[in-house]
Amino acid sequence: MILCDIGNTTYHFKVDKKSFKVPTHESLNHLPIYKGSIYFISVNKKATKEFLKKYPNAINLKSLIKFKTAYEGMGIDRQVVCSNINNGIIVDLGSAITVDIMKNGKHKGGFIIPGIEAYKSIYPNISKKLLFNFEKNTNLDKIPLSTNDAINYAIFSAITLPIIKEYKKYKTKIYFTGGDKDLLKNYFLDIPVKYKTNMIFNSMKKIIKESKKRKRENRC
Amino acid sequence: MILCDIGNTTYHFKVDKKSFKVPTHESLNHLPIYKGSIYFISVNKKATKEFLKKYPNAINLKSLIKFKTAYEGMGIDRQVVCSNINNGIIVDLGSAITVDIMKNGKHKGGFIIPGIEAYKSIYPNISKKLLFNFEKNTNLDKIPLSTNDAINYAIFSAITLPIIKEYKKYKTKIYFTGGDKDLLKNYFLDIPVKYKTNMIFNSMKKIIKESKKRKRENRC
Repeated sequence: MILCDIGNTTYHFKVDKKSFKVPTHESLNHLPIYKGSIYFISVNKKATKEFLKKYPNAINLKSLIKFKTAYEGMGIDRQVVCSNINNGIIVDLGSAITVDIMKNGKHKGGFIIPGIEAYKSIYPNISKKLLFNFEKNTNLDKIPLSTNDAINYAIFSAITLPIIKEYKKYKTKIYFTGGDKDLLKNYFLDIPVKYKTNMIFNSMKKIIKESKKRKRENRC
Repeated sequence: MILCDIGNTTYHFKVDKKSFKVPTHESLNHLPIYKGSIYFISVNKKATKEFLKKYPNAINLKSLIKFKTAYEGMGIDRQVVCSNINNGIIVDLGSAITVDIMKNGKHKGGFIIPGIEAYKSIYPNISKKLLFNFEKNTNLDKIPLSTNDAINYAIFSAITLPIIKEYKKYKTKIYFTGGDKDLLKNYFLDIPVKYKTNMIFNSMKKIIKESKKRKRENRC
């Protein structure tokens, strides 16, 4: 079974036990024609068009997802991941950082923080004086004494403090996933946290499995 | 006395009791040649050059400022404002939002958050699906249920939570100043806050006054 999560900036493939990414602005010509079923989800219309040119028989999981939420405009990738969590704060660190709250199997809502690459570009766009070196291990307990620290401190505060606020409210496990999932490791040492590489693919597999089960049951 | 604060994006003038702004990308040709002394501070070399073409006798306050801090690369505008505050958290909401802590006349440090205009542009740059309407009165006690709320919630959380964290640590008054000084009004209703329109100009005046006093004393 081949899986693909088509995002804003990359095709994220899972082929057998290997996963790899192809930027959406690149051609898919170099990829093989896979045997077996190909399932995908997408938040990117243009990239989906290219993907279906290459894999015309690929199945869009959209119609199989039975996720209920009052949230308007929730990306299918967030729906897929949340549908697999009963209680938790799900933080998907990609080009945008989405934060979703699940409580007793219900989606309470969520919010969207700019991703780390977006933050890296925003400062020098304001002023050349705000060019800085990104520093993964910024000390958030010490008020900064340089422009470089002042910017890194603000970036990590902007990302971590809203998540910590929800944690204090809901007292539930935090799941970090997505390309930058390890980025916040140092800032959540005292909080129950899980780092999940393949949350999206595991959830897609579960949806496919349940859908097949429903089909079998309907046949009987 | 004419004062000017030359920032990243505007010349901010104070002429008699009136203040006004001219974008730094615009010419100063339409302005009159003022009688009396002109004092300025600047964080913008290119704009300073244009300013001095128009007002060659203007006096740069830089050399008169006696502000001590361990902070490397602190903009002269922040130094001027902080030098006039003994205890407080000074939040200057401009193209960038600078936050500085003064305790017993000492500068403890600070940090730099992207300004509101920068935040407005960052989301649609990540994805067209993150186009949104800016909403000044966002409820930060309610987890969002739409993309629009999700983005506004994240923006105001990113700006307010780091300031509230410092307030809880230092328990001192917060001063809001700069072009967007009223933007956060709804989020600090339970905290002692001052909104100061002309913090920069009042501080510049004080520095000029003290410098004149020192000169007189040296003459005696």
